[in-house]
Order: sequence, then structure tokens, then C-alpha cells
Amino acid sequence: MNGLMQQRQLLLSSLIEHAATHHGDREIVSHLVDGSMHRSNWRQVRERAKRLANALGALGVGAGERVATLAWNTHRHLELYFGVSGRGAVLHTVNPRLFPEQIVYIVNHAESGFVFFDTSFAELVATIAPQCPQVKGFVAMCRRDQLPAIDLPGLLCYEDLLAEASPDYAWPTFDENRASSLCYTSGTTGHPKGVLYSHRSTVLHSFTACASDGLALSARDSVLLVVPLFHVNAWGVPYAAAMCGAKLVLPGASLSGENIYRLLKEEGCNFSLGVPTVWLGLFDYIERHEHSLDLSQIRLERVVVGGSAAPRAIIEKFEQRFGAFLIHAWGMSETSPLGTIGTLLDKHRELPVAQRIDLQLKQGRAIYGVELEIFDADGRPLPHDGKAFGELKVRGPWVAAAYFRGEDGSPLDADGWFATGDVATIDGDGYMQITDRSKDVIKSGGEWISSIDLENVALGHPALKETAVIGVAHSRWQERPLLIAVRKPGANTSTAEVLAFMEGKVAKWWLPDDVVFVDALPHTATGKLQKLALREQFKGYQLPTDRT
Amino acid sequence: MNGLMQQRQLLLSSLIEHAATHHGDREIVSHLVDGSMHRSNWRQVRERAKRLANALGALGVGAGERVATLAWNTHRHLELYFGVSGRGAVLHTVNPRLFPEQIVYIVNHAESGFVFFDTSFAELVATIAPQCPQVKGFVAMCRRDQLPAIDLPGLLCYEDLLAEASPDYAWPTFDENRASSLCYTSGTTGHPKGVLYSHRSTVLHSFTACASDGLALSARDSVLLVVPLFHVNAWGVPYAAAMCGAKLVLPGASLSGENIYRLLKEEGCNFSLGVPTVWLGLFDYIERHEHSLDLSQIRLERVVVGGSAAPRAIIEKFEQRFGAFLIHAWGMSETSPLGTIGTLLDKHRELPVAQRIDLQLKQGRAIYGVELEIFDADGRPLPHDGKAFGELKVRGPWVAAAYFRGEDGSPLDADGWFATGDVATIDGDGYMQITDRSKDVIKSGGEWISSIDLENVALGHPALKETAVIGVAHSRWQERPLLIAVRKPGANTSTAEVLAFMEGKVAKWWLPDDVVFVDALPHTATGKLQKLALREQFKGYQLPTDRT
Repeated sequence: MNGLMQQRQLLLSSLIEHAATHHGDREIVSHLVDGSMHRSNWRQVRERAKRLANALGALGVGAGERVATLAWNTHRHLELYFGVSGRGAVLHTVNPRLFPEQIVYIVNHAESGFVFFDTSFAELVATIAPQCPQVKGFVAMCRRDQLPAIDLPGLLCYEDLLAEASPDYAWPTFDENRASSLCYTSGTTGHPKGVLYSHRSTVLHSFTACASDGLALSARDSVLLVVPLFHVNAWGVPYAAAMCGAKLVLPGASLSGENIYRLLKEEGCNFSLGVPTVWLGLFDYIERHEHSLDLSQIRLERVVVGGSAAPRAIIEKFEQRFGAFLIHAWGMSETSPLGTIGTLLDKHRELPVAQRIDLQLKQGRAIYGVELEIFDADGRPLPHDGKAFGELKVRGPWVAAAYFRGEDGSPLDADGWFATGDVATIDGDGYMQITDRSKDVIKSGGEWISSIDLENVALGHPALKETAVIGVAHSRWQERPLLIAVRKPGANTSTAEVLAFMEGKVAKWWLPDDVVFVDALPHTATGKLQKLALREQFKGYQLPTDRT
Repeated sequence: MNGLMQQRQLLLSSLIEHAATHHGDREIVSHLVDGSMHRSNWRQVRERAKRLANALGALGVGAGERVATLAWNTHRHLELYFGVSGRGAVLHTVNPRLFPEQIVYIVNHAESGFVFFDTSFAELVATIAPQCPQVKGFVAMCRRDQLPAIDLPGLLCYEDLLAEASPDYAWPTFDENRASSLCYTSGTTGHPKGVLYSHRSTVLHSFTACASDGLALSARDSVLLVVPLFHVNAWGVPYAAAMCGAKLVLPGASLSGENIYRLLKEEGCNFSLGVPTVWLGLFDYIERHEHSLDLSQIRLERVVVGGSAAPRAIIEKFEQRFGAFLIHAWGMSETSPLGTIGTLLDKHRELPVAQRIDLQLKQGRAIYGVELEIFDADGRPLPHDGKAFGELKVRGPWVAAAYFRGEDGSPLDADGWFATGDVATIDGDGYMQITDRSKDVIKSGGEWISSIDLENVALGHPALKETAVIGVAHSRWQERPLLIAVRKPGANTSTAEVLAFMEGKVAKWWLPDDVVFVDALPHTATGKLQKLALREQFKGYQLPTDRT
């Protein structure tokens, strides 16, 4: 027997309708790529999103067709969020920082029919256009007088398209499971894979962004959205902001410490979200202008950090400088991305600051809608005691079930769990802490050793500048840890001394079987340690413990 | 093209699973009907809900079968919330304060197969049992030694059922549109009608209860749930509390000011919900024990009031006594019930207290998920200017589409709107204010006159104790207002004097065509003015303006 409630579909158009109807005057402020400031509001975003929807119709964009963007955080990109998905097409946000050949692959794999781009990417677009034969048109997100001087057949002008289109448009209604947007993972191995979100998954995810124990987004928030609109739906904030009528401040291309500071101050932002790098830039700016800045003009209350872990110093600085609370969030493209969120519990009200920050350093705690579980090597669930660590798997209505065009087959196991590729602990309150990547953890005689834990302990040695631990094949134990270390300039130490230093700080059987000193470790363009390259380099390395 | 996200169904079992897994130790405190206190937690609620699910299976309760309750707010009633719905049956909460014949009607109309009851309703159950032939068993919610001494064939004991059942139970998965619970409206005219909620509508509604701009329920809240579990799903709080892991304090049968005060203090409650009457009792208790109470021991922060409007004095008292913020919420059985919620906006941060309380007196503002619109007599939407008033209609995934067993046909218009029976204004920020009931508004020459506005203005006259305004047939204007007033003891005034007093305070054409003085006005058992009776009484009344 079914309930007798209304069968209203959860569509993204309902979000912009709510915002425009009840929060029409609430501002959307953009720092445009030409350096100017632009002020809009939710009513105007709806009007222009409707013009865009009509313009897309005139261009022949059909239901389900992908429309790509190469763009910064501006009001126009926000209009695309609602105009494209609202009419039933699929918004495909492309990361313009990828290599051109990756962008070509992604645009072609997605079969995006149109590409909307900020003029700062004109050269990039001119480069990729000849290699993207399925693209029917490139739309420069500017006025006619700002059109870039590039040789591109069929170049269109965003503002002309909108000016020529009617603002009268009735959003279509359709099944909430229809695709709404598409983001590609920046896979470290192999080709990028597309995650295809639905209207349903996105609206449900927005509820969590608005939850008190989520990002707690509300109509009282003025949000500086530093995380790019091309980065996993900007963590869902554009949709959630419409759901609750928050003010959005979009910083465009300039993520300098100075610009962030200015926007926080001038737009009264109390909430912001971004990766750690951006905050390092902000504090660097503040420290360099210590005497000329009045931090009491900043009303920052909450900051969400994701992408990679925020160091303790950043948490402390937000607290000391602004009285702002840092919330760690963890997720991935495949989780829309909100997976865990580091809000506190009732019992933490009286916690001493240092212990509270220990908690804040974890990746966050379980939220309703994302089931979290850790499994041992045999697929058995492990206890939630904050100590046992195992492969982290997730399940829920905003977790991916497959990749676009079936790449890599089904990523789910028989029970519907998606393997995150992380190794983690979960404690009794649902706080999750990543201890390693699945592919980096060292499998020694059926037990797991965390490479990250060993690296951190070794890094405590005063002579070491950087450390990496990888598993090396071992005839008896299957794998044993090898520590690869870079010494500080002028410093000296030995294998024996480093191992002696580590003794007692980790379980005895965790101690590396050898230490190798190198001049430098390999890193990716974004500064991440390339363990894959290290494993290649040390393939077949003869451990001293394995010379029988 | 569909998205590629997981098709997890939104089921109530996922709420209790989340709470038990990640907030297992969070307390559920009950004041039992025998006066004792009982301490449980979310883990135990899940365990006992699973035992109950097994016990229901053993009793032969099938999917979709209704299981009725006649019970106060205790842990056992909470277990029924999850055990009954979780296994796919339908929890049918019956208001034990109704007349026995209404209860008989409701139980029979719902075809409830079992009735779970608190022992304080033993007499009531003994009375109705012979008239409810479809009920297969009555279950007393107590231990065997507490079983009531009533002559009831097949009387069952709740604690025995649970003790005999296994705690091992895997919640079934099924379509989220399946019915989860059933509440009957306390219709003022005609028979009560059943609203049949679904798992989907209830989970979506819970998201809103947890939203910052909703009830902002979080893991940090200790909630004194005064609103009964038999009153529209206790405003959704049991489900939402599980969603976020809040502590629940259940006051049982005792809603005296003294008991409320004691629970607030002893259980560290920072959040509470209830109808105005309860709060009047609390403040009455406080005022009578002014010198012996230390209000600083109460950490109350937020109070939600619904059911009927809270007077200004209550808002002020919560603020002055506790520093607590009163949130008006409006809804009805047909809206699950959250319809509008009176949280503030960013621009209200600096509002002077008196003006802020003016806002708090409104019924709340629009929330995502419930579309609100007001319509004139011709069905045209009216502007959201806070002045134009019209029939309030709502639409959304937790709004009813029909009544149980099709009573009254479809309550929706062609565009899917549900008419609330209220007349209201909506302002540009979505704040809604009820100005009248649709059936009470006076239709004068195609325009509407608010009976409540006239009553309030007239009540300002120092000689009047109570006022009512009804529409009386008029040959030219269709209807014109008649003011019916009760004078204060010893006071005197005349029709002409009252009308002169009202002049200038309302539009000239709104002025009543006559004033009649009576000794008393008719009221319902719950104290509501019975305008229906007044309309009967004054049917055919000859207005002085209609003597042509």
C-alpha cells in the first residue's frame, strides 16, 4: 500500500524557483574575469537562467545533451547551473586547469554539444576546438564588445544569446532520476571517469548541505564560494544556497589572499569553503600586512575545508584570527561530494581547545544519507572503535552507482558498497579518519600497516625533510615497508639511527625493513607525492630481511 | 538519460539504523505513565524496535497493515514508530483525547488490526473494544505485573512480546512510496479523515526538520518533546532526531508546568516543542515559585510553537526568562506538518527587539519543499506584499494528495494545489500570516473582509471582553460583517459607540453593518470559538443596511 502524498519530483528547477520567489533580493556578487564587480540576485539569476534555457532550445540542445563549461565562479556560471539542468540538459563542468589533452578527452568522451567558456580561457579553447569535432558551438561568457580575438568558426556571445531570448519559460517537469550534471574525476591512473549526478541525488545532497549537522547553510549566511564551480558541483553549495536563500559571493579567477580578504570584508561573508592552499594564501597576506589590517571587520564564523586535510596550524589560525570554526569535510566526485562532515557533538561542548582541535583534524563524522563502513582484507566489517582500520566503503542516494558510459564496469560490490580507495578508522560517534590510500597500505602477512602513519613518525626525526613509505615484495610476509627519505640540507643520519628513532613509536612489526636516502621524491603538478612512481622505481628492491 | 547514482530508497529504517550506528549512546529519557523515569538510548531503541518487528510478524501483521496506538510520549511509543513502519506496516497514532465514538470510528475506518495502549487508557480501551470487531489484539504497553485489570479477551503484554522475540531482524527494503504512518485530522465538520504518509514524504520532511532554516535539529540538541507522538507525527521530531542523533526527552502523560520545568532542568534540554497551553502552564508554575527556582539552571535556547498562535507575551517571556528564541511553525496533518517556520533572515540581525517579535508573531516563512501561494476569489495568484490576502494553497512532496480510502475525493485543484482552508498574506521574504479561515472570511461585493482583523480591532474597545465577526447575507453585497460582542462585567457601551471606536482603524467599507451584544459566545471543548454555531444562530439576521 502506497502513501497518499503528492508525487512532486525533486528537480533543480524547484531550487531556483524557491530562491527567486522568497529570496529574490538576496544578492549574488561576482568578481568577473575582467576585474570588475557584478551585483545580481536570485530573481535575476532565475530570469537569466530562463533566458538561457530558451537560448539553448533555439540552439537545438535536447534533453540529456551535455553542455560543457570552462569557467570561473561568476554569476554567469551560476546561471548555467540552473538554466542547463533546469531545462533537462546536463551541465558538464570541466576543470580548466587540466592539461589540454585531458580536456579534449573529457569533452569528447562526454560528447558535449556546446562549450561555454570564460574569456580568460580563449587560447585554451582555440587549442582544443579543432580536436573536438562534436562541439557545435563555443559560447564566450561575456558581452559582444568583450569577445576574444580568436579564430573560431561559430563563436557565440553569451550576453547576445540571453538578450535575444525570452525570459518567459516554464521549467519542464520530468522524472527526478534524470541526469542533471556531469563531473569527471581527475584519476591519477588511467583516463578521467565521468560521474553523472541526477536531479534527485543533487536535491537530497542539498538538504544535507543545509542541515545543522551538515554545512548548516541558511538564509542568514553570506557565503564566499572559493571552491570552484568546476570542482564537484562546488561541493553542492550553489544548489544548497538556492534551497535556503543564502547570499553568494563568487571570486572569479582571483583567489589571491588579498582578494579573498577584500571579499570577506566588503561582502560581510560569515561562511567560506575551499582547499587548504587558499587559506595559506589568506594568512600569508594577513601576516604580511599585519599592521594595516583590522580583522575585526571580518565576520567569518565557519570555514569548510576539503580536498586535502587542513593542518592544525590553519585550524588554530582561523580560531585565533577570526574566532571562526573550521569544519573538515571529506568526500569525492563519486559522493557528490559530501561524505563526512566535522561538526561537533553535545558532549564536546566543554572540551578543552586542544582536544577539540584533535577532533577537528579528523575527516568529519557520518551524516545521514551516506552509510560508512570499514572492511578488513577478507571483506568483514571492522569495529567502530577509532583504532581498527580498513577499506572505507560508502553507500547512499548521492553516491555513484556507475561511471558515465559504463567505464570500468560496476564500481559496486554485491552489497551495493562503493569502495572509496581510502583506508580509514571510524569511532563510536561516527568520526572517520583516513589512515592511508588502499593502494598504499602495506599488506604484511595478512595485516595492514599504514604508510602514512610510518611517514609521519619518521618525519619527526630532526634530520629528515620528507618521507615516503611503500610496500616492497617480501617472500615470507608478502609485503614489508620500505622507508624512502630525503635529508634536510646539511643534516646527516643513518638507516640504523632512523629505525632506532622510530622504535617504540609504532608497533614493532610495523618498523620498516629498510631505509633508503634519496635527493628528492617525485610529486604531481599539484604537489601530491607520486607513490606509483616510487613503487616503479623500487620494484624488485632487495630488502635486507629477505635474503634467505 | 538517467543519472548514474545509487537507487537507495528513503526508508524510515535507515533513520534508526543511522542513529543506532553512530549515536548509539545518545539518550532517550522517558517519564512513564506510572511516574517513574526510564533511560534508554538509540541503540536500545533499535534493538527493541527489531524485537517488536519480529513480534508483529509472529502476530501475523502484514505489509501495509495498520497498527494503532493510544499512548503518551514514552520510549515504547518511540519503538513503535520505528518497529511498525520499519517492517512495512503502517503506524496509526490515535489521539486518546477524542471522544470514544470518534476513536471507534477512526480505528474501524483505518481497519487497524492491533491497538497498542498505555495502561492509563485501559478503561477507554475496555469501552471501545466491543465496537471494534476488526481489532485482533490489544497490547498493553507495560510489564506483565502492570497489566490492567480489565476484561478484554486476548489482552497482550508489550514487554512479554518483546522478551519472547529475537533482536535479530533485517529491515526489509521496499519502494519509498509505501505507506509508513496514518494520522486522522480532527475535522470540525464531518468525520475525521486519514492522512497516509509515505516513507519518502517522512524522510524528506525530516531533512527539513534538521535544516538550519527548519527546526535546526542537530546532534547537539537535547529535545523535550512536549508535542504528543499522537499529534501529526509529533511534528516529525522522532524521525528527525534519529536522522541527526539528538537526545529525546519524553514527558509521558504529565504536561504540568512543574514536570516540564523539572525535565528541562534535569535533562539539560536546550530545545522544546509544544502548543501554547503548555507554555502558559510552565510560566504559571515559574511565577508561583518565583523565589525558590533558579532559572539559570535551564539551558533552553529554542522553542517551537505550533497548533495555535503564541501570544506576544509568551514570546517575550521565553526571551526574558531563558534567553530562548520562540519559533512559530505553521502546518496541518495534511502537511506532515511542517509548512512554514519562523526563522529569521540575515537582514533581521540588527532589528530592534519589538520589531523582531512582530516578525516572530507571523506564522513563519516559506521553506524549500512546500510551495505556498495565495489566490483571490477567482483563483488568480495574489502579490507577495504582506498586504494582499487570499486563500492559502500548498504543494510539495510532504503534502497530502488524497485522504485514506478516498474520503472527500481529490482535495487538489487542477494544478496540484491543496487548499489549506486558511486565508493569509505572504510577504516578499516568504513570511506568511493567517488572517482568517476561508469559511469565516466575509465576501462583500467580490472583495474579502477578514473577520479576525475586525474582531481584534473591536476587542481594543475597553468595554468589550470577547468579540466575534461573521458574515450575514445581504441582498446587495452578498455578505456583510456582523459584530457579536460580550461586554466586560459592569461595563457598558452601544452599537454606535463601538462602530465609532472602530472607524479609522479599518477601511471604511470593512466596518460591521451592525453590532449585537450577547452574554456569552459558544466555544469548543478546546476553547476555540464556534463560528459555525454563531452562523446558525444568526442565520437570517436582518441587517439595518439591508431593509430596502
